[in-house]
Amino acid sequence: MRRTIFDETHESYRQMLRDFIAKEVVPVYPEWEEVGHPPRDFYRRLGEIGVLGVQVPEEYGGGGSDSFKWAAVTMEETNRAGVTFGNYSAHTNLILPYLMRGNDVQKKRWLPGFASGEIMTAIAMTEPGTGSDLANISTRAVLSGDGSHYVLNGAKTFITGGVLADLVLVVARTSPYDPADRRGGLSILAVESNSDGFSVGKMLKKVGLKTSDTAELSFQDVKVPVENLLGNEGDGFSMLMQNLAQERLTIALGTISTAEAAIRFTQQYVEERQVFGKPVAAFQNTKFVLAECSTEVVAARVFADRCLQAHDDGELSVADAARAKLLCTEVAGRVIDKCVQLHGGYGYVWEYPIARQYADIRVSRIYGGTSEVMKSIIAKDMGL
Amino acid sequence: MRRTIFDETHESYRQMLRDFIAKEVVPVYPEWEEVGHPPRDFYRRLGEIGVLGVQVPEEYGGGGSDSFKWAAVTMEETNRAGVTFGNYSAHTNLILPYLMRGNDVQKKRWLPGFASGEIMTAIAMTEPGTGSDLANISTRAVLSGDGSHYVLNGAKTFITGGVLADLVLVVARTSPYDPADRRGGLSILAVESNSDGFSVGKMLKKVGLKTSDTAELSFQDVKVPVENLLGNEGDGFSMLMQNLAQERLTIALGTISTAEAAIRFTQQYVEERQVFGKPVAAFQNTKFVLAECSTEVVAARVFADRCLQAHDDGELSVADAARAKLLCTEVAGRVIDKCVQLHGGYGYVWEYPIARQYADIRVSRIYGGTSEVMKSIIAKDMGL
Amino acid sequence: MRRTIFDETHESYRQMLRDFIAKEVVPVYPEWEEVGHPPRDFYRRLGEIGVLGVQVPEEYGGGGSDSFKWAAVTMEETNRAGVTFGNYSAHTNLILPYLMRGNDVQKKRWLPGFASGEIMTAIAMTEPGTGSDLANISTRAVLSGDGSHYVLNGAKTFITGGVLADLVLVVARTSPYDPADRRGGLSILAVESNSDGFSVGKMLKKVGLKTSDTAELSFQDVKVPVENLLGNEGDGFSMLMQNLAQERLTIALGTISTAEAAIRFTQQYVEERQVFGKPVAAFQNTKFVLAECSTEVVAARVFADRCLQAHDDGELSVADAARAKLLCTEVAGRVIDKCVQLHGGYGYVWEYPIARQYADIRVSRIYGGTSEVMKSIIAKDMGL
Amino acid sequence: MRRTIFDETHESYRQMLRDFIAKEVVPVYPEWEEVGHPPRDFYRRLGEIGVLGVQVPEEYGGGGSDSFKWAAVTMEETNRAGVTFGNYSAHTNLILPYLMRGNDVQKKRWLPGFASGEIMTAIAMTEPGTGSDLANISTRAVLSGDGSHYVLNGAKTFITGGVLADLVLVVARTSPYDPADRRGGLSILAVESNSDGFSVGKMLKKVGLKTSDTAELSFQDVKVPVENLLGNEGDGFSMLMQNLAQERLTIALGTISTAEAAIRFTQQYVEERQVFGKPVAAFQNTKFVLAECSTEVVAARVFADRCLQAHDDGELSVADAARAKLLCTEVAGRVIDKCVQLHGGYGYVWEYPIARQYADIRVSRIYGGTSEVMKSIIAKDMGL
Repeated sequence: MRRTIFDETHESYRQMLRDFIAKEVVPVYPEWEEVGHPPRDFYRRLGEIGVLGVQVPEEYGGGGSDSFKWAAVTMEETNRAGVTFGNYSAHTNLILPYLMRGNDVQKKRWLPGFASGEIMTAIAMTEPGTGSDLANISTRAVLSGDGSHYVLNGAKTFITGGVLADLVLVVARTSPYDPADRRGGLSILAVESNSDGFSVGKMLKKVGLKTSDTAELSFQDVKVPVENLLGNEGDGFSMLMQNLAQERLTIALGTISTAEAAIRFTQQYVEERQVFGKPVAAFQNTKFVLAECSTEVVAARVFADRCLQAHDDGELSVADAARAKLLCTEVAGRVIDKCVQLHGGYGYVWEYPIARQYADIRVSRIYGGTSEVMKSIIAKDMGL
Repeated sequence: MRRTIFDETHESYRQMLRDFIAKEVVPVYPEWEEVGHPPRDFYRRLGEIGVLGVQVPEEYGGGGSDSFKWAAVTMEETNRAGVTFGNYSAHTNLILPYLMRGNDVQKKRWLPGFASGEIMTAIAMTEPGTGSDLANISTRAVLSGDGSHYVLNGAKTFITGGVLADLVLVVARTSPYDPADRRGGLSILAVESNSDGFSVGKMLKKVGLKTSDTAELSFQDVKVPVENLLGNEGDGFSMLMQNLAQERLTIALGTISTAEAAIRFTQQYVEERQVFGKPVAAFQNTKFVLAECSTEVVAARVFADRCLQAHDDGELSVADAARAKLLCTEVAGRVIDKCVQLHGGYGYVWEYPIARQYADIRVSRIYGGTSEVMKSIIAKDMGL
Repeated sequence: MRRTIFDETHESYRQMLRDFIAKEVVPVYPEWEEVGHPPRDFYRRLGEIGVLGVQVPEEYGGGGSDSFKWAAVTMEETNRAGVTFGNYSAHTNLILPYLMRGNDVQKKRWLPGFASGEIMTAIAMTEPGTGSDLANISTRAVLSGDGSHYVLNGAKTFITGGVLADLVLVVARTSPYDPADRRGGLSILAVESNSDGFSVGKMLKKVGLKTSDTAELSFQDVKVPVENLLGNEGDGFSMLMQNLAQERLTIALGTISTAEAAIRFTQQYVEERQVFGKPVAAFQNTKFVLAECSTEVVAARVFADRCLQAHDDGELSVADAARAKLLCTEVAGRVIDKCVQLHGGYGYVWEYPIARQYADIRVSRIYGGTSEVMKSIIAKDMGL
Repeated sequence: MRRTIFDETHESYRQMLRDFIAKEVVPVYPEWEEVGHPPRDFYRRLGEIGVLGVQVPEEYGGGGSDSFKWAAVTMEETNRAGVTFGNYSAHTNLILPYLMRGNDVQKKRWLPGFASGEIMTAIAMTEPGTGSDLANISTRAVLSGDGSHYVLNGAKTFITGGVLADLVLVVARTSPYDPADRRGGLSILAVESNSDGFSVGKMLKKVGLKTSDTAELSFQDVKVPVENLLGNEGDGFSMLMQNLAQERLTIALGTISTAEAAIRFTQQYVEERQVFGKPVAAFQNTKFVLAECSTEVVAARVFADRCLQAHDDGELSVADAARAKLLCTEVAGRVIDKCVQLHGGYGYVWEYPIARQYADIRVSRIYGGTSEVMKSIIAKDMGL
């Protein structure tokens, strides 16, 4: 199905990325996996070629676009090659919207570095004990007597990019928990990772996502200047809610392009691989399975593109973003599972991209809100 | 997700249909089911309100539109109400494209009646031994010595609308079977049902589709004037192929709007029905199941609308039409099965629309080419 | 997998049934479907050949067996032939255990006729409004001033066998509803269908089960002698609970033997039917689909047989009966859906047994407790 | 469902293993994962406690049992604890049957060390180009001019235990390929891994199975004494076929006990973990999902136990072994996927056993013959 959302400028950007990935990522990618993330300098390189700042306003050194389509192209191209840009996606697709809600002084301070790759970021929501339930956050930020800073105490976990981050957006409780307003009292502080009392725990060993450093963070009496408060006190929950649609769209776009790549990898494999005297591709089962995969993926792609356009047009609802995440992650999970099967034993060997996709894709039904949370959102939207 | 393919004229047409259905169809629908089809006059009524001839050129008494969107609206509204217009869909969505390929004389003869409901039509492809394999057709049409007519012999089955049809497009072999050209030698003859030797067998009893008369037809030395040949001798297979995309799009659009209706019926039911002291809608399982249904249907709807637009733009490929049919029929099958379950015992009682939908929907994965045939087409398109 | 639960006597019984079905049921079965049930005399014939009374004690004119395996053989043989014995299964497999809990006088009154087919029975639990929630039953039985009879008022629905039944076991409230004891106050009365005030409403039109008369019943001041109370007042709920395991095992055994028959019908069909120049059976897709069906059915059969043996040994738990029902009905649903697909258009035509199986099987996930109720029971058994 | 296949002696063995695993495996298991296999000495320890030689005849230092139930208990207990005994399973469950077909001299040479853990074994079938197609094996063993030894050349891949093995059973071609007898010409040679020309390639990095060393092997002019031929020349294919049923039963038993463990791990997790103010276990979705898992696993367990008994009784058919593998690996895959989901983010973190199970279980649908190969076997058995 011919896509309708891109123009020539997107296609040049795509070509630039494709060349860049082939030259500068693919050859060194196994090393990144070994270490657990790209080298710190790689993010500066991403800054140079304009990937990090596409949506940062020009006055702060960015590309000034208000479209999310560049991010979509970036995900399509990394997934096409079976690689990642480390924590690029959290940095650019999840965190930028929060910084864009900062005041002018904050933007001036952080956005240029954000765009250049000098300042890498992470966002710290989940705590060991809260999971998807933001209302239960217990990390506390207490204003000092002189009103100059907050004193931050608590712990966070599953922090994507937590090891290399220079600036971490921490969701903390600035007012005591009020059962009558479960969602109140949360604020977002931008905490510099070299602050006293800020420590990075062990890097979590995960089933997949081997180039994405996921860490536990802990804060012991960390002093955070009041100038580092994003928005107003108590805005935390509403800022989180406003950005969830983009986060879920990001995951939808990422997973569906992963599934597209899986089909491409698999088609290549089954056309080359011979069994019982003919290519795997020649069996009716292979044809039928790949046709099913193609059907699910082509349809989900049309839906994802429609959601992307709606997002650019400012009309993507929270429920449709949830539908997009739910659908695309389910489709990608199913498709990649079938593609592993068509690879036989090689589908289980790490050097084959399909094996890494299998390990990676599983978390997509969990992070950014589990499939169960998506269903709750959708049901609510239906009036149930 | 806001739909983008309709304008105000479609919405007025929709409203007109909705009123018409409520007044003239819903009250008598159980009688149609009992008889097995609407009364013959109902089709004249459809002609009067302009449903049959939307795409018939104005010069032949039709609406002159070249858009398939009116058909889409029609299916949405019948399915929304849980009814059918009998064999409207075969007549208008499947058969009109064949007649439009006739010559001027033929159009003048048949299209005005087609649009007014005077001449109801059917198309006869399948034979008791061929199924989806058109190349195996054995009904023979032999040119008479004087070249004035064909002598038609053979039998057809699964002919939708076969009982009431005035004019039947019969796919017949006009040249002997040639293994080197499996698809050659087929032609399409428009046969009047009052011809000598034309007989209508028993109406097939089906699991569902109770207002659609499906019949066996047989031809014994039926004389068909050469003027009734559509296109040229031997064009049969290519004409069939060219119209399959629209047939499959029709099924895709019909099934997805059936699934939308199923969700609506079910939501109503679970909100009203109490079990264990609360509405069925209050259970997490109910919410999750309906959220899954909604997600699949919203996404499939976006895909179906995209295919419909592509069809209007003349760019819907055979493979994408196959994907649309495969996807929408699978989604509708799954969704309706889940909706039956949420109805409990009432989901099995015929007077509830969900029960009829369950009985009706099963054939959609079979007719118009089985899901297996769709997969073969898609695989071929992928180069497999 | 060789079965281990039957001996030679079961196999002779099986052979007797197979012959009987071929001679006395298959030829007239379409008439039964037309009418909606077998002729009343057929049940006397079942009595004659010993099918109805296998488990009735010899002193009351039955076979005196305490094994449920005969019932299993009976269901295997009817399903094998694609027929039913009407409401045999409700009469013998569901209702007998209730009558066996009657006192000697009651047994003497009813069991001989039960075994001979003179007295056909039904059980009336569900009301228009309660569904699976027995605690909500509102049919009332009020003891007369002189203590000689109950006065019964209320309505029941979905009563299998309700049209032809001579004796209906009605679950009624004999004490007012007590929120502190939701399950208390229910009793079971054996009501003769020729009682004044007893009326049979319309026969429900269902998707399938066309030889099983399902009716609404209503009771208006029906006088039921106290001698017709089964067990003690207030025993209703516990009697229902004690018999549910056998009811669910019945459904499990019935559905799995239906699925076995579906595979047999389908294998015959695909071996005979030619498409694209070879038997349908020759396609890899056909082989794989039937192999999947066979695997699920062979495994479910082993599980069902194990449950049957446990039941005979008095050790089948309520939770395992629920697992058996849940598993076998899900497997049968999936298998029959796939078998319909392998039949192509013929799978939708009523005269093919697979079409009737498709229409019949759907209710098995609903009646006898829905799949959702089964899951609740199993979860509770797991301590969740 | 009460199990019927074990007696007290099995239960004492189970208890011994449970203690052993808790004391000697669980504490050091993370180190094994790091290295990629248990230390070499661990296998001697397994020998000491009698795990390796249960089925080795007493005269060769084993337990002399002819039952496979001990192996079943061993798999149940390792999987219960979320650990493995490294390549125990390949050594004991797959390879012993081959050695048992050796002559007396061979048994005397190898079985005592096999039972004590002195001689660890592997079997080398798959080649970099053959996959499941044994007929395509191209490793050659050419008899030397003096008939004293074979000269072995070729390469093998996916060799479980290949790194630590002392003795490798190599399937090699001893006669040239004959298209008329695709399965002929294969023989099995027991090759000592310290032979000249035998080399172990890199250890394959896999998605899971982190304590199982999987290697590529290559043979360059390896001299293998004729005394090391197992059975006769040309017996290779038939020996492979005869042992496949046990291999597949092994996988079925292993995966179903893994699934049982997954449910146990998950039930613990959801009972402890709080979200939105209550345990995860309190949500209807959690209950329903675990009830579904329990149902599938309880039924598959009954089937697997039945197959195990049939195997001990010498009557497990190749097709039923294939059904057992297909069913149990599919069930385990589905169940573990659902259990990961119920763990939320922790289901993706390696230190949680469910995460390792997710990574491990995927290959079970591939090795020992893919699900597709199982389906082909079953279809053939059905006469398709």
